[in-house]
Amino acid sequence: MTDLILYIANKNYSSWSFRPWIALTAAGIPFREELIPFGPGATHPRFRELSPTGKVPVLHHGQVRVWESLAIIEYVAELYPDARLWPADRENRSLARSISMEMLSGFRALRSACPMNLRRPVKAIPLPEGVSGDVARIETIWREMLKRSGGPFLFGAFSAADAMFAPVVNRFAAYDLVRDADTIAYTDAMRAHPAWRAWETAALAEPWIVPEDEA
Amino acid sequence: MTDLILYIANKNYSSWSFRPWIALTAAGIPFREELIPFGPGATHPRFRELSPTGKVPVLHHGQVRVWESLAIIEYVAELYPDARLWPADRENRSLARSISMEMLSGFRALRSACPMNLRRPVKAIPLPEGVSGDVARIETIWREMLKRSGGPFLFGAFSAADAMFAPVVNRFAAYDLVRDADTIAYTDAMRAHPAWRAWETAALAEPWIVPEDEA
Ligand SMILES: N[C@@H](CCC(=O)N[C@@H](CS)C(=O)NCC(=O)O)C(=O)O
Ligand SMILES: N[C@@H](CCC(=O)N[C@@H](CS)C(=O)NCC(=O)O)C(=O)O
Repeated sequence: MTDLILYIANKNYSSWSFRPWIALTAAGIPFREELIPFGPGATHPRFRELSPTGKVPVLHHGQVRVWESLAIIEYVAELYPDARLWPADRENRSLARSISMEMLSGFRALRSACPMNLRRPVKAIPLPEGVSGDVARIETIWREMLKRSGGPFLFGAFSAADAMFAPVVNRFAAYDLVRDADTIAYTDAMRAHPAWRAWETAALAEPWIVPEDEA
Repeated sequence: MTDLILYIANKNYSSWSFRPWIALTAAGIPFREELIPFGPGATHPRFRELSPTGKVPVLHHGQVRVWESLAIIEYVAELYPDARLWPADRENRSLARSISMEMLSGFRALRSACPMNLRRPVKAIPLPEGVSGDVARIETIWREMLKRSGGPFLFGAFSAADAMFAPVVNRFAAYDLVRDADTIAYTDAMRAHPAWRAWETAALAEPWIVPEDEA
């Protein structure tokens, strides 16, 4: 039995939930998942009871509450050092953290124009200002990290950095944003990962529609 | 001699530069500082040469480049474990990371309405939607952490979490946003810290005006 409980929202839509979920699942770390579907306004009153920010994901570990997707990953990385959520090499680890934090703090044009939506048929949309700059920067990050590591994931083996970019992999596919062959190879590897497939299968079986996220 | 070089912009205005600078300075970690003043548009072409994001702060350590304010702090915390940039206790450390990442990813209404400006005379401004919610959440974070720790800083001794909130301390003062006595006690402690004073003295001596940040 595990004493880690990860509260998440809809697998089809909740991009921030996806990040720690796929990090923990890919690393084989035992946790219990509690899914609370979004209500009206893409929120839910229970989020407020569970998390100091009123947002998911939030991790409960006994009395401890950990919020923010990347803080959850850091906490679990400390609990399970052998799971190697971060690359072992110091320089790679610092690159993984730099790009993960770039994801956490940025790419807002892409995030708001193209919500994660696993069930969405592939279809391009007119892109507001700023999205193409975000896409170009993300492709540069991926290309450089894959060149360093040789792939198939950003630092060779699947790591926290791949988890932080997982929702973007869906966006690139669903909104037909993908450009070059390296990007396609990486997004294919991500979408073939067993943890990705498990999340996606559950997402496709969900009955809920969130109008705010249907772009 | 140190081999860490921290590239920053104007001390009066560059809130992201302030965060790792005060973390490293307060912890007594040796580093060399290189200040590149903002040119037109609150940016500078050299940022692009120095940092993969074209933004500061960026840390150079030999061939290694670390960008994103909080990733710089994590990197240096690993290089200098005895400097205790993060709280030693696991639960406190996870709280410190959760609130630091909340700062990194959020509070955008406050950040855009009230730019950091150390030289600004205290003066309230009409506040756009969302700012009062950001202020209330930040006061809640500070109140709860100070109650846990007993102060004077969020986790007792000065830590990375205080560094991440340092620019907000200036905003609360400069835009007259401060509400309760606990908040005032905390912001007073921050502003009396020798590392704060050193940064502020240098900021006040700077000749440059950045019109974008004069709200
Ligand atoms: N920066 C946060 C973002 C969390 C977030 O925005 N979560 C969304 C779901 S993906 C949420 O809870 N929305 C409900 C609300 O804001 O009320 C993280 O990394 O965890
Ligand atoms: N999330 C980044 C933000 C960095 C950032 O926005 N830096 C500003 C200065 S405070 C900058 O370099 N602006 C110049 C530009 O965007 O061209 C961090 O935490 O370091």
